[in-house]
Amino acid sequence: MYQLNQYSQSWVPSANGSMFPVQNIPFGIFSDQQSRRACSRIGDYIVDLSKLADKNLFDKTGCNVDTLKGSVLNSFISQGKGVTGKFRLRLAEILDLQNENIFRDAVQDCLIPVEQCVLHLPLNIGDYTDFYSSREHATNVGIMFRDPANALLPNWLHLPVGYHGRASSIVVSGHKIKRPQGQIIPKEGEPPILAASRQVDFELEMAFVIGKENEMGNSIPLSEARDHIFGLMLFNDWSARDIQKWEYVPLGPFLAKNFASTVSPWIVTLEALDAFRVEGPVQSPKPLEYLTPEISRNFDIQLEVFLNDKLICESNTKYLYWSISQQLAHHTINGCNMKVGDLCASGTISGPDEKSYGSMLELCWKGTKPISMDDGSTRTFIQDGDNVTMKAFAKNDHYCIGFGECSGVII
Amino acid sequence: MYQLNQYSQSWVPSANGSMFPVQNIPFGIFSDQQSRRACSRIGDYIVDLSKLADKNLFDKTGCNVDTLKGSVLNSFISQGKGVTGKFRLRLAEILDLQNENIFRDAVQDCLIPVEQCVLHLPLNIGDYTDFYSSREHATNVGIMFRDPANALLPNWLHLPVGYHGRASSIVVSGHKIKRPQGQIIPKEGEPPILAASRQVDFELEMAFVIGKENEMGNSIPLSEARDHIFGLMLFNDWSARDIQKWEYVPLGPFLAKNFASTVSPWIVTLEALDAFRVEGPVQSPKPLEYLTPEISRNFDIQLEVFLNDKLICESNTKYLYWSISQQLAHHTINGCNMKVGDLCASGTISGPDEKSYGSMLELCWKGTKPISMDDGSTRTFIQDGDNVTMKAFAKNDHYCIGFGECSGVII
Repeated sequence: MYQLNQYSQSWVPSANGSMFPVQNIPFGIFSDQQSRRACSRIGDYIVDLSKLADKNLFDKTGCNVDTLKGSVLNSFISQGKGVTGKFRLRLAEILDLQNENIFRDAVQDCLIPVEQCVLHLPLNIGDYTDFYSSREHATNVGIMFRDPANALLPNWLHLPVGYHGRASSIVVSGHKIKRPQGQIIPKEGEPPILAASRQVDFELEMAFVIGKENEMGNSIPLSEARDHIFGLMLFNDWSARDIQKWEYVPLGPFLAKNFASTVSPWIVTLEALDAFRVEGPVQSPKPLEYLTPEISRNFDIQLEVFLNDKLICESNTKYLYWSISQQLAHHTINGCNMKVGDLCASGTISGPDEKSYGSMLELCWKGTKPISMDDGSTRTFIQDGDNVTMKAFAKNDHYCIGFGECSGVII
Repeated sequence: MYQLNQYSQSWVPSANGSMFPVQNIPFGIFSDQQSRRACSRIGDYIVDLSKLADKNLFDKTGCNVDTLKGSVLNSFISQGKGVTGKFRLRLAEILDLQNENIFRDAVQDCLIPVEQCVLHLPLNIGDYTDFYSSREHATNVGIMFRDPANALLPNWLHLPVGYHGRASSIVVSGHKIKRPQGQIIPKEGEPPILAASRQVDFELEMAFVIGKENEMGNSIPLSEARDHIFGLMLFNDWSARDIQKWEYVPLGPFLAKNFASTVSPWIVTLEALDAFRVEGPVQSPKPLEYLTPEISRNFDIQLEVFLNDKLICESNTKYLYWSISQQLAHHTINGCNMKVGDLCASGTISGPDEKSYGSMLELCWKGTKPISMDDGSTRTFIQDGDNVTMKAFAKNDHYCIGFGECSGVII
C-alpha cells in the first residue's frame, strides 16, 4: 500500500522543493481552451483531473469522476473525505518518483504548464461567515476606536465572535476591485456625503471550506469539526474603513465589506496541513465545555502581505486565539446548518509585533504611521492602482505547502 | 389584447373574493406524487405550470418552459420581467371568466386542490440581507436597550441600516423550528452558560426577491430598483434575544438569528401589488440624492400575527421608513452584486401603536407586559409548542391579494 511521507518526491522535477510538492495536492478549478473543470497542481503544472480520471486511474477511490467535470468543486467535495482523501493519496501515488515508470506516460498529457491556464473561483459559496478570532487584531481595533483600558469587549474571550458576510462578491485572485463609494462623514459632526471611500484596506485572513453538512437543528461537536472541514484558502476581506465607521452601529459591517473579498485559487486540504498543527495561545478564562479541550488546535502557516511588491506584513495563523474547530462548533451550537462549499474566514490575523499586523489600519495605526514605498511615496490606505498580494505557506525541514497567491488591484 | 383590471373575475369559482383572485397570480414550487415543479395559485387550486405549458399555451410569452420543471424558480425568474410579466398576464387571461369557453377544458387537469399539494421553498437563495427599516421598531429597541432620549442612532435617518444574514437556514412555512441553544448570561455580571434560549421571538418582516442582476462594481439606481425586484414574500426572522444580547457587540447578530427564518411559500409579484402603492412616512432629514426622490414608495399591505390562533399584532408595510427601492439602491451603491433569488428582508415592521408592534420583545415591552392567552396562560416570549402564524394581504374595494401563511412551531 502506498505511503506518502515527508521524504516523498515527485517525478515532476519542478515539484520538489516548490510550494506544490507531492505532499500538497490542493484542489482547484481551471480552464484552458476548454471549459472549466477540476484540477490539482504539482510543481509548475496544472493536473487536469477529469482527463486523468478518464484513464481509469482512480477507479478504486470510489470517486464519481463526473464530479471532476463541473465548473465548481462542490459535488466532488460532497463525496466526503472517505472518497476525496483516497483520491488525493492516489494522485500523490501517481505523481510519486517511485512510481515514475508505471504512470509517467499515462499522465504526461494531463499536465499543463500553469501559465497556459486560468484559475477560477473553485466553489459555489452558499453562505460566507467572517469571524474575528485574532486577539491582537481585536485588541488593536479596541484601542484605536473604543477604550484602551478595555480594548476587548466582554464577550470576546468567551466565544469566537462572528458575523455573516456577502458570498456573491467573493472573487478569485487576480480579479480587479473597483473602489467602492458610499456614505462617509467628511468631518466629525457633519452630515454624511456620498463619495468614493478614502480608506480602502485589506484584511489578511485564512478561510475554511465546509466539506460535510449538518442537518438544521443539529450541532457539530468540537471533536468532529475537522471532519466537516475540507480545507483552507487564503482570504482578503477588503474593507472600506470610512464607510464602516459610519454604518456599523448597531448591526455590524455591511457595505464596508460586501463590495468584494478575494480568495486564493487553491483549496489546501486539512490532510496536507496536518503535519503543521501546533498549540494555540492559552485560553483564559477557560471556554465553555462545547469549545474545549482541543489539542494542537492551530496551524503554523506563515503569511505575507505585499503592497506593490514591498513586503509589509509577516504574520502566522498560529496566532489565532480561536481555532477553526472552535469556530465551527460555535457556529452550529444553535443548530445552524452548514452546506458544502460554505466559507468561514478567520478575521484579520495579526500577531504580537507591529510587523505582523494584518491590515493597513493597524500597520499605519489609524493613519498616524505611513508606510514608505520604494518610489518615495507613502501609504496609509490603499490607493488606486495599488496591488495587494497575500502569500501563505507551511514549511518544515522536508517540504513546503503553498496556497498560491491571493492578489487584487484596486481600480 | 387581453386586459386584466380590477373587475376581472375567474371561471374558477373559489377564486373570486378569495386571497388568490385572477389579479394575484403568485409563483411558487409544489410537489404532489411527482417531483417539485413551478406552480401558481387560483382560489383553492394549485396551477401546475409545467403541465399547462406543455399544452403550448405560453408560446407567445417567450418563456422557456423548461424553467418551469426545475425545483426552484431561479431560472424562470432569470428570464426577466419582459418574459415573466407576459407569462403572468397570459395565465390571468387563461383563467379569466370571459375566456372560460376557450380554455376551461384544456386547463382543468392542471388544477390540483391545494390540500393535495406540498409547497416548498421556491428559491435557491444565494445571499440573504436583513434591513432594519421600521422607525418605530428601531426606536422601541433603542428605548429599551440604549437611551430613550437618543433612541435612534445617528446613522439611522440617513441610510437604511442592514446586515447580512444566513441563507441556508431559511425554510418554508410549516417547517418546525428547534429552540436554539447558545451562550447566555444567566444574571447580569455573571459569566455565560450554555443553555437553551429562554427568549425566542418572532420578527414580522416582508422580504423582496431579486429578479435581475447587476454586475459587480455597478450600482442599481433608485429609479431602476423596481425592475430588479421580482416580488415580495412574508418573512419571519426568528430571534433569540438572550443570545443576541450577549453576542451582538460589535459585529451584529449572528447565532441569535441564523438558526432559522421562515418564509411564506408564494412570491407575490410587484405587478400584482402595483395597485397598492402608497406614500411612505416623510423623510427628514432629506436623504442623499441616490436615495431620493421616490413617489409612492411604500405598499399598503396589512399584516397579522397569530400566536396559537390568537391575533396579537396588526401592522402594515406602509409604516416602513425606508422603501424596498431605497434598500436596494443603498445595498448596491458600493457596487455589491445582487443575484437572482437573493432575498432582502425589511426588518421588523412595527407601526405607531402598541397593537402594531412586530415582535414579542416590543409587544410585551421586554417582558414587562405579558400577553394573556385564551387558556389562561401568559407569554412574554415563545414557548415550546407555540405556533406563530403571519398573514399578509393587500385589499381594495374590488379584490384582495394574499401572500399565504408564514407559519412555524417552536419545538
